[in-house]
Amino acid sequence: MELKLDVVVKGIEPLSADWRRRARAYLSNLAIPLWSLGQLLDLAEQLAAIKQTLKPSVRNKVVVTMAGDHGVVAEGVSTCPQDVTLQMVYNFVAGGAGINAIAGAAGARVVVVDMGVAADLDELARQGKIISCKIGRGTGNMARGPAMTREQAVQTLEAGIGVAGQLVQEGVELLGTGDMGIGNTTPSSAVLAVLTGLPVREVTGRGTGIDDETLDRKIGVIERALELNRPDRGDPVDVLAKVGGFEIGGIAGLILGAAYFKVPVVVDGFISTAGALLAKRLAPQAVDYMIAAHRSMEFAHRQMLQELSLRPLLDLDMRLGEGTGAALAMNIVEAAARVIGEMLTFEAAGVARNESLEYTP
Amino acid sequence: MELKLDVVVKGIEPLSADWRRRARAYLSNLAIPLWSLGQLLDLAEQLAAIKQTLKPSVRNKVVVTMAGDHGVVAEGVSTCPQDVTLQMVYNFVAGGAGINAIAGAAGARVVVVDMGVAADLDELARQGKIISCKIGRGTGNMARGPAMTREQAVQTLEAGIGVAGQLVQEGVELLGTGDMGIGNTTPSSAVLAVLTGLPVREVTGRGTGIDDETLDRKIGVIERALELNRPDRGDPVDVLAKVGGFEIGGIAGLILGAAYFKVPVVVDGFISTAGALLAKRLAPQAVDYMIAAHRSMEFAHRQMLQELSLRPLLDLDMRLGEGTGAALAMNIVEAAARVIGEMLTFEAAGVARNESLEYTP
Repeated sequence: MELKLDVVVKGIEPLSADWRRRARAYLSNLAIPLWSLGQLLDLAEQLAAIKQTLKPSVRNKVVVTMAGDHGVVAEGVSTCPQDVTLQMVYNFVAGGAGINAIAGAAGARVVVVDMGVAADLDELARQGKIISCKIGRGTGNMARGPAMTREQAVQTLEAGIGVAGQLVQEGVELLGTGDMGIGNTTPSSAVLAVLTGLPVREVTGRGTGIDDETLDRKIGVIERALELNRPDRGDPVDVLAKVGGFEIGGIAGLILGAAYFKVPVVVDGFISTAGALLAKRLAPQAVDYMIAAHRSMEFAHRQMLQELSLRPLLDLDMRLGEGTGAALAMNIVEAAARVIGEMLTFEAAGVARNESLEYTP
Repeated sequence: MELKLDVVVKGIEPLSADWRRRARAYLSNLAIPLWSLGQLLDLAEQLAAIKQTLKPSVRNKVVVTMAGDHGVVAEGVSTCPQDVTLQMVYNFVAGGAGINAIAGAAGARVVVVDMGVAADLDELARQGKIISCKIGRGTGNMARGPAMTREQAVQTLEAGIGVAGQLVQEGVELLGTGDMGIGNTTPSSAVLAVLTGLPVREVTGRGTGIDDETLDRKIGVIERALELNRPDRGDPVDVLAKVGGFEIGGIAGLILGAAYFKVPVVVDGFISTAGALLAKRLAPQAVDYMIAAHRSMEFAHRQMLQELSLRPLLDLDMRLGEGTGAALAMNIVEAAARVIGEMLTFEAAGVARNESLEYTP
């Protein structure tokens, strides 16, 4: 199934206000003090409204880990050699990475997508161990020119939409986003700076753990990239093309696809949320389908979450990416689905209710 | 197996510093930026040190929901009728409560213990649907006299220890605490006030959702109970007897038992943490085995967590009790166990490591 970007963007529907109301009324009648499961009930309401049922199901969970390389690493913005992207893809496939362990705990499958790793991964794709949507072998160095062409940017988005479509067709009911790409906090900060207008210094952090000198260099590189490429803040595809990344576009597309197909999508940390920001700018109603997994240690992540008006489920000082935050949050999403699907109301449970706490819609 | 309180208190060992060190060194060699899974790695280190292995297992999870009634409800401190304790026990057994739904998502079993519900639950106990450790039909009204005798307080603690011992013998590797008892934020606040010396007003909240007038009354009732009973701050058993509750003692005992048997125990919200505070005052090293599930909406819960120096895993505006927070956190504990048990090191994964980030013990 090949879906064009503009069809998807136009086809995303806002959540049904009617189902929100029905879910809220139902949840307000559970045999507990009113709304005493807090954010878990907010989430249950969202799931019910997305799936248009009071018994939303989130079976067949999948975390999609999108991998890509970044030309900008030539500027010395990361502590890690570029090869690590490739090595980590092999680690994902071998099952030895953080995302494998955490997805295992959540009962989720990990799907690795090559959006643009700077190496030949055809053999892994032929073996069915990864999905290949390779746009190129790493982006261009945004400090010297655009990261990719506009056509490539659209391709990344449509590739992500395609992956979402394929997984939904296979019966996946809950998606999570993830990333792997050495250097990819740099384009993520760049995207955030452009879309919000915030100064680069305020949205640029230490990624895998760079020192002060490297941080200053990273800020300088992003500032130069913005000056040179002049991305158009009002045109998210242009922003993605000029200062984004292949996997960031893939993630944005995956989120748009999830929203189009009415499947909730758990958004991981800093890089994934850069993709989510792009998705929101393309289709504001896509936010209704997003669930913020956690607050990353990468400090500007809170700016992104604020921009999306999303409250994260977890805050555990994580900053790994790969989709680890999304995987960890998936069990909370399942708990929310079970709360609305399985809990009894006052009446059904035969529990006395304090009239003063009664729900009035 | 009947274990005496003093044997257990003396028998709890602090965590092995050697195993902590070994776990920390191992986790610092995982193929990720140093400690980039944050609190999940702190937890993995704790699990490894508790279980004295680099592959800690947390199978056969059980949340123990301890139920009891409180004579102090006669003072009008709650919005709910006392019968709700009994009705909720039936809801737990029927599988329709919040704890059932959330434990289901975590793959955990719910074990309901009657510590002192003000009703006859013998039939449920005979059917094996609950465990009966009934100390009495509700505590005495602490505004008029002690909640229970000193002997009863010791009985509640030893009952909790016994439940822990039985479950550990059955192969349970992860325990969680939970409570059910209309009015039980009142004794919990009282315990907190005595043990910390904080003013009653600063540690008393709205429980199931009382109004200003009822809150003022609740504060007055606790102040009166402290004046009348004069619990000895330095004697946790006396505090439990004078102003505690049967289920609070059971929870404290369960935690002590878990620590004695070297099983990690996930501590739920306000009421459970009152039990944890008592456990800590009886055996300070018991804290090493505790995992704080979440920060409750009951605002004084943060004082309790501070007192225990525990950082909670979740903060989702929950305030239900039953063990719902503990159940929700159990999957995070499992993720931590899998992280240390399944993830590969730089060397094993063949991932290049930045020397500047290398771990030096």
